Amino acid sequence: MADKTEVPKHDVIIVGAGPAALSAAIYTTREDIDTLLFERGVPGGLAAITDQVDNYPGFPDGVPGLELANNFQKQAERFGAAIEFGEVTAIHDDGHWKRLETTSGDYLARAVLIATGSDYKKVGVPGEADYYARGVHYCATCDGAFYRDKRLVVIGGGNSAVQEAMFLTRFASHIDLLVRSTIKASEVLQDELQKYIDSGKVTVHLETSTEEIVGEAGAVTKVIGKHDGKKVEFPTDGVFVFVGLKPNSEFLAGSGIELDHLHLVKSDEDLCTTLKGVFVAGDIRSGATMQIASAAGEGATAALKIREYLEGHKRPIQN
Amino acid sequence: MADKTEVPKHDVIIVGAGPAALSAAIYTTREDIDTLLFERGVPGGLAAITDQVDNYPGFPDGVPGLELANNFQKQAERFGAAIEFGEVTAIHDDGHWKRLETTSGDYLARAVLIATGSDYKKVGVPGEADYYARGVHYCATCDGAFYRDKRLVVIGGGNSAVQEAMFLTRFASHIDLLVRSTIKASEVLQDELQKYIDSGKVTVHLETSTEEIVGEAGAVTKVIGKHDGKKVEFPTDGVFVFVGLKPNSEFLAGSGIELDHLHLVKSDEDLCTTLKGVFVAGDIRSGATMQIASAAGEGATAALKIREYLEGHKRPIQN
Repeated sequence: MADKTEVPKHDVIIVGAGPAALSAAIYTTREDIDTLLFERGVPGGLAAITDQVDNYPGFPDGVPGLELANNFQKQAERFGAAIEFGEVTAIHDDGHWKRLETTSGDYLARAVLIATGSDYKKVGVPGEADYYARGVHYCATCDGAFYRDKRLVVIGGGNSAVQEAMFLTRFASHIDLLVRSTIKASEVLQDELQKYIDSGKVTVHLETSTEEIVGEAGAVTKVIGKHDGKKVEFPTDGVFVFVGLKPNSEFLAGSGIELDHLHLVKSDEDLCTTLKGVFVAGDIRSGATMQIASAAGEGATAALKIREYLEGHKRPIQN
Repeated sequence: MADKTEVPKHDVIIVGAGPAALSAAIYTTREDIDTLLFERGVPGGLAAITDQVDNYPGFPDGVPGLELANNFQKQAERFGAAIEFGEVTAIHDDGHWKRLETTSGDYLARAVLIATGSDYKKVGVPGEADYYARGVHYCATCDGAFYRDKRLVVIGGGNSAVQEAMFLTRFASHIDLLVRSTIKASEVLQDELQKYIDSGKVTVHLETSTEEIVGEAGAVTKVIGKHDGKKVEFPTDGVFVFVGLKPNSEFLAGSGIELDHLHLVKSDEDLCTTLKGVFVAGDIRSGATMQIASAAGEGATAALKIREYLEGHKRPIQN
């Protein structure tokens, strides 16, 4: 008679179900490696809530993010991947097995892939969520090219905000940079920014808080800010927010898995974390590019490294 | 009047036009970074000559390799990538510029991406080319899953051949391993192989050369070998060849760019080679997985690292 308290066992448990996770699952399940994915929200990660993905290779005219995310999921499920909806709250090293505490009880896995991604921090103002990915953006590399010869507002005062504001001048005709207090970016970046200020491409508004993002007929038209207690309006075609990253790595506290100063997961060249048998891929990895292509590529690579780990030895490339 | 001998200059020159190269070009050209690709054969790399790609994320039912390769190319060209048909024969470090010797003369680039890929070595027998990717394969991870409950012939006697023969038993009902002389694989692998021999899943044929791959109605039906001067026939549904890898890195001799023992290009965590300003991605990179997803992901990552290099400093992930 089976023990009613028996803990479910899997060869591989993948924490997350975004592009890196689903790409890895395509690889493992296609080779009949028993794989379970844990997802606490909606599969597809940030890709699923992106309006249009222009730079994922293979779609010449771009592809809606939700469609791409659905394609990833369908492909993994076609090979037998199963998604459990719940949250992994801790990982423990029980030697040969890793034990995962989850909201659906404990699970055991021979190998684990951390692919929980990172979220962009929000300003938290009215209108921000309404125009998410349709006028309000968090990644200049992804969405900057949609704003050729348009006006933009950039929100933030750290290294990213300054760097990306300068980068976005490649596309935008003018940029208003809204800084809540003072600029915190490095001196090198501030010196460089001065050139863009001098040329009139960027206007910096210090001690200016963002109060609301306003649109009309589905498109962003202006940002309402506050400076010196007074309301200020910035007409714009789009908003880029750079106020920080929120890596989904809280559940790793106490696991012995090392994080970097941004709380991203450190890995070696085999995408293995500092805990043997636990791998990492995608936007939660230290050094991540926050690009779907990179995440999918790392997912595939991680799956092959996990296969080697399960087989007990490296697989020669060809000799 | 322009100097007739003026050397063409580009921000980025990409050597190759396979998945890694085209993925990088999608990223650089979308941001108006002037990019030229050099291709000595047909764009698309090994993907373009693959019958069906089942594991590139985003295509739930798989995609013909040629279609995927064409999609990559169209996408890069949509953003302005230009492909020059010719061969790069040497790279020189002229300080701020890299100088590329090519069959169309010298070119200068501020940054270079090496994405020339690797080819699989062929046995070189009649029938091999006719059934390429339609019965004759060189990558078990890519095409093994097409042979569930089928008979296979595996050719080779090194680490890869032995390892992949064992791996292919996940799918195939039986495997004939044809070894020209004796098995050269490591003792660990040979010990493991013995279990598969004992269970009857793998039959090893030593001192058996491959003479011809024979098919009927477009499908492989048998391999003709020779043992002890006599003809031997092996009925089969498919053939996997593991007789070595041919990295396309000969042109790097004398460049100062370090290769590994397999002649693949070494890189750091930023995908930079040992020559600053020269980057590497895809199947020519030391540690490559020979997967399209990994190559495309590395291409995207390399493009962002090249952008940082051209900008003169690292771009913070978000802070």
